[in-house]
Amino acid sequence: MPILSAAELTQFALDILLAAGVPPHRAEIAAVSLVASNLRGVDSHGIQLLPFYVDQLLAGEVDARADGRVVSENGACLLFDGQNGLGQWIANACSEHAVRIAAQHGLAMVVARESNHFGAAAWWAQKIRAAGKIGIVMCNASPIVPPWQGREGRLGTNPICMSVPGPWLLDMATTTVAAGRIYKAVINGQPEIPPGWAFDSAGVPTTKTAEAYKGMLMPLGGYKGSGLAMMVEILCSVLSGGAMANEVGGIRYRGKTVRTSQMFLAIDVARFLPVEEFTARVSQLVGLMKSAPAAPGFDEVLVAGDPEWRTEAERRASGIPIAEGNWEKLCQAAARVQVPAPYNGK
Amino acid sequence: MPILSAAELTQFALDILLAAGVPPHRAEIAAVSLVASNLRGVDSHGIQLLPFYVDQLLAGEVDARADGRVVSENGACLLFDGQNGLGQWIANACSEHAVRIAAQHGLAMVVARESNHFGAAAWWAQKIRAAGKIGIVMCNASPIVPPWQGREGRLGTNPICMSVPGPWLLDMATTTVAAGRIYKAVINGQPEIPPGWAFDSAGVPTTKTAEAYKGMLMPLGGYKGSGLAMMVEILCSVLSGGAMANEVGGIRYRGKTVRTSQMFLAIDVARFLPVEEFTARVSQLVGLMKSAPAAPGFDEVLVAGDPEWRTEAERRASGIPIAEGNWEKLCQAAARVQVPAPYNGK
Repeated sequence: MPILSAAELTQFALDILLAAGVPPHRAEIAAVSLVASNLRGVDSHGIQLLPFYVDQLLAGEVDARADGRVVSENGACLLFDGQNGLGQWIANACSEHAVRIAAQHGLAMVVARESNHFGAAAWWAQKIRAAGKIGIVMCNASPIVPPWQGREGRLGTNPICMSVPGPWLLDMATTTVAAGRIYKAVINGQPEIPPGWAFDSAGVPTTKTAEAYKGMLMPLGGYKGSGLAMMVEILCSVLSGGAMANEVGGIRYRGKTVRTSQMFLAIDVARFLPVEEFTARVSQLVGLMKSAPAAPGFDEVLVAGDPEWRTEAERRASGIPIAEGNWEKLCQAAARVQVPAPYNGK
Repeated sequence: MPILSAAELTQFALDILLAAGVPPHRAEIAAVSLVASNLRGVDSHGIQLLPFYVDQLLAGEVDARADGRVVSENGACLLFDGQNGLGQWIANACSEHAVRIAAQHGLAMVVARESNHFGAAAWWAQKIRAAGKIGIVMCNASPIVPPWQGREGRLGTNPICMSVPGPWLLDMATTTVAAGRIYKAVINGQPEIPPGWAFDSAGVPTTKTAEAYKGMLMPLGGYKGSGLAMMVEILCSVLSGGAMANEVGGIRYRGKTVRTSQMFLAIDVARFLPVEEFTARVSQLVGLMKSAPAAPGFDEVLVAGDPEWRTEAERRASGIPIAEGNWEKLCQAAARVQVPAPYNGK
């Protein structure tokens, strides 16, 4: 399995994006944010996405030169039109607006329509956090999840992400698992998946990997997951005037634009209490969790962010392993835009 | 089983609260909001709470005469000290502040510490919605839920509620089910509960009702539910400087105050698009969900709010049935403060 340093992988991603026609500064933002996801162990939202991005760019289905524009700014609320631009570029602009407005009003809500896949929400929420704010980021996504009691895809995995000044970071799909977990079971030849992960194509819960692969993801914990996905949909697409639910495309589908909507909420912690005190209180809260004895079968209590920070420390030290299949697809995408691979497979 | 009209039940609740020493206007707010929960079929958050409230009031553990006070107001952010006042009175004041500030800035976040049980979050989110805003309300709660991988209670059911101008309303605990569902299984003599609802007291998942009753609730969908509960905890208690996690008391425990924290977020929809257009888009989104054919075993797709609105229409027409056990406890509480029951049981 190829193992690359973050710097090598970032350069490779950057070269691919540049060759696919993305302007330099935008390509850099996208490359760095994608590799950050690999560093955190969230490979589904890392450079594994690049082959799809290249497909979209070469098909002219993402306009990497679009700036996006502010439709309206009114008090703490900003509406943004992504103009089908690069998702990372739009998210970067929206995060900066959110930080700026929260500094002025204490809160900011920026809602973008007509955007594209922005990688992992965590990168943007952390960008807001880096400015001393709480960052909450949500987006709608390809309709691969049926509403509860239904049997056709209507909702996306619609993630909820929150980053705070302190040792805790949540970035979760509102499905029980991400689609990548099903693909992984297929690739690894596992015939069974746990109950609660997926439906078959008729909308019946299944534990057969093959049926789940042809079927649909299950909302987190049943009807509540559908409720959370709708919450995300309303705060993103309903409020932005963008594409809603199954009007949204997907990076795996050609012939139409993705038209995703995204929401960026910033909370200026210092309006409530000093940031240092807030951070100490988050640590204290995390400490209260970790003071609970471990349940049978576990060694310790972990909180959101722990597994990813551990992986990041490892991968910064030892490099980022890329699964063979993903590496092959990435090199094929690179070849399409005449970029040589930095690793010869030996 | 006693069946009372909403008006009769509200008067009874009002009489009890007045007799327990709650000032008239506050008692009215509490009585009306509790009965609203019964009307919606959410009996766990209706007048079933009154016996506990009476216990708290007679024990002097809630100060029904405390006004609460604004600690700071800074841009769109307001910090409130509930001064151990009646939860409904504090929530009413905070909701009004949220509406006022959102009218000024487009957004408002009001965070209260040192509050008490405020009934169902939905009442307060709907109060914000009634002013044309999106209302998002969260609170922390008694620590009856272990953090994921732990085996001692640290987190509450920490609900997430969102009300919008349009036919959708979410009010959900971040546990798979509310504690009331386990109590109900006990009362109804059901030996088994579904998997995913609860742990036994050793922190092992159980489907035995008796073990679940002595055990703990399971976070919604596992570690993601713990993540959501922590999100709520951070936005409520960390930000407010209030009691965190297992520092929170509970209405069922005597000898200490509850010290819950609550968060009220208001979003002025009109800053993004006209409220009428937003409402039409929510309807359209709900329509997209309902256009999905029903999964095997179901007749139709429902969205958050549907079951409760249906129950409310029924109960407004035919009255509110109160389970015998709950009625008995309510009458005992009334007797403690010398209030006669309006229904003689015949």
